[in-house]
Amino acid sequence: MSVSVPATRVAAYAAPAPKAPLERTTVPRRPVGEHDVLIDIKYAGICHSDIHQVRDGWREGIYPMVPGHEIAGVVAEVGPGVTRFAVGDRVGVGVFVDSCRACAYCLRGDEHFCTEGSTGTYNALDRNGEPTYGGYSTRIVVDENYTVRIPDGLALDTAAPLLCAGITLYSPLRHWQAGPGKKVAVVGLGGLGHMGVKIAAALGAEVTVLSRSLSKREDALKLGAAHYYATDDETTFEKLAGTFDLILSTVSAPLGLDAYLALLKVDGALVNVGAPEEPVALNLFSVIDGRKTLAGSMIGGIAETQEMLDFCAAHGLGSEIELIRAEQVNEAYERVLASDVRYRFVIDTATI
Amino acid sequence: MSVSVPATRVAAYAAPAPKAPLERTTVPRRPVGEHDVLIDIKYAGICHSDIHQVRDGWREGIYPMVPGHEIAGVVAEVGPGVTRFAVGDRVGVGVFVDSCRACAYCLRGDEHFCTEGSTGTYNALDRNGEPTYGGYSTRIVVDENYTVRIPDGLALDTAAPLLCAGITLYSPLRHWQAGPGKKVAVVGLGGLGHMGVKIAAALGAEVTVLSRSLSKREDALKLGAAHYYATDDETTFEKLAGTFDLILSTVSAPLGLDAYLALLKVDGALVNVGAPEEPVALNLFSVIDGRKTLAGSMIGGIAETQEMLDFCAAHGLGSEIELIRAEQVNEAYERVLASDVRYRFVIDTATI
Repeated sequence: MSVSVPATRVAAYAAPAPKAPLERTTVPRRPVGEHDVLIDIKYAGICHSDIHQVRDGWREGIYPMVPGHEIAGVVAEVGPGVTRFAVGDRVGVGVFVDSCRACAYCLRGDEHFCTEGSTGTYNALDRNGEPTYGGYSTRIVVDENYTVRIPDGLALDTAAPLLCAGITLYSPLRHWQAGPGKKVAVVGLGGLGHMGVKIAAALGAEVTVLSRSLSKREDALKLGAAHYYATDDETTFEKLAGTFDLILSTVSAPLGLDAYLALLKVDGALVNVGAPEEPVALNLFSVIDGRKTLAGSMIGGIAETQEMLDFCAAHGLGSEIELIRAEQVNEAYERVLASDVRYRFVIDTATI
Repeated sequence: MSVSVPATRVAAYAAPAPKAPLERTTVPRRPVGEHDVLIDIKYAGICHSDIHQVRDGWREGIYPMVPGHEIAGVVAEVGPGVTRFAVGDRVGVGVFVDSCRACAYCLRGDEHFCTEGSTGTYNALDRNGEPTYGGYSTRIVVDENYTVRIPDGLALDTAAPLLCAGITLYSPLRHWQAGPGKKVAVVGLGGLGHMGVKIAAALGAEVTVLSRSLSKREDALKLGAAHYYATDDETTFEKLAGTFDLILSTVSAPLGLDAYLALLKVDGALVNVGAPEEPVALNLFSVIDGRKTLAGSMIGGIAETQEMLDFCAAHGLGSEIELIRAEQVNEAYERVLASDVRYRFVIDTATI
């Protein structure tokens, strides 16, 4: 147990205004409260949604904005009431850092579906009305109840992306019961998709990657896919009609939903974890015939995020990453937008 | 057991050509085969899809077309191999009269999802390439395996619509586990919707009807609904946000899917048993936030249809009907299209 420290400023990379490049700055971190842990951030993954938010694609942003919700680090200090972590523990922080803790969803461990809305790790106002700042930074203060343990078996750098990309795929794979005897397709092989392949294969499912071209075929098979088809090839949709129990779409480009629904077995589910901002067209007969499900999923609760990390440690799963220095972040954003990363950029926060 | 009879012609009401009015004619019925039952049809319900098919809305039709897949009658003769029915038994026939009997779906009792396609009760070619003719007729020959028993507790006239409208609602209500503690909304109070209200209430769910105006409020409450809201009233969508476990849409008009998905709880399902022919627009974030399901369902298998009839008999549920003479069928079609029926027309086939 250590003593609370006053609010302090820490180094960070932030966008000072909408669409502006990120630059080095400092941001405040609150004093370490009763139930808080102070984390020395070691690595922060770059999520596609960081770029959306910095560039104001989804909603009004709060600036300066320090993105980053794939955080891996080490506990540097704990508040007096902290019981779950000690100084030196390896920990992670994901997409949210608080929630109401009282609604039915919070109480059942689905804090990400909190009826009041969970508090985003960045680009949000906390319960005291103060802006939150994310993981592109050297330190962060987080309530222990919104902090997870990174098992010893996982390296911190390849574990960082699990806090968003990992749980985003793990949660629907578990919810829709991917496992032995199930045929699972992953649409898109990027930061999300490549984790979907690894986790689905580790769960025992027979995994197929559906990607635009054949360019990532070799990678997909190495990651654990049994099959790979190019969706640019029209015959793919004929060959695979009625094949899958579960299709996970990780792409944010508009998808021809009817064509993908036709690839499902009766009672199959097409689950979107990526999505375009604009509405998509759907013929409802695509779900009526075969009692099919079109669904969505986003991240997971704290307990499930811990479960995912434990699962990944047990199966030796981390993200495939390209480690970068903080000053490369703007360039990395351009490369993410060009799909030029295999498969996740991770910032070494020692370079901030 | 009785002896097989040669092919014969029976009286029927048929559309001689696309969009033509129905008129009295005769159509052939096959000889009673080894596993066939000859049914004296007593009543035939008029389903909205009859009108679609007669008027060629969905696909190329086979003419003359005798619609009718909500058939209730009495067994008049059985083939030598028939074991499940005897002369005098009260029986029903629904939307299909055959299937491949060999695929995984047929073998598990989901004949309506047969990989080769089930054989429609009318407007289809049977496994010998002969056209099928439906229930607007005095007699029909059907394989005993595609015939169900109408329990003594059900009147034949109000039971007829259960063979399509009943099973269309019963199957998704069971699949998505409507029951005590569940809040279920039924969108549209017509031939399908009114059966949804009755069955969902009998299953123990708390039922809400969502209908355009308040005009059917009194009926809905009598049928078993606990609540009724007009969807023409914008405040309905604010009041009911996040309310339902399950919404069943029975309407074929395009629905604002995003608005209805917002009425679901986390993990809720919007299931379409009616649908417009044209594609609808959907924002995928409507399913991503709250892990919601947009799904569809159509009729049910033979075993589940029998289960539904037994359930309806046990709970005293039949369709609310308006009994008509055969010569009123064209007029009845116009009234169905104008939503001017409470809630199902049934033809007294003695008048053919």
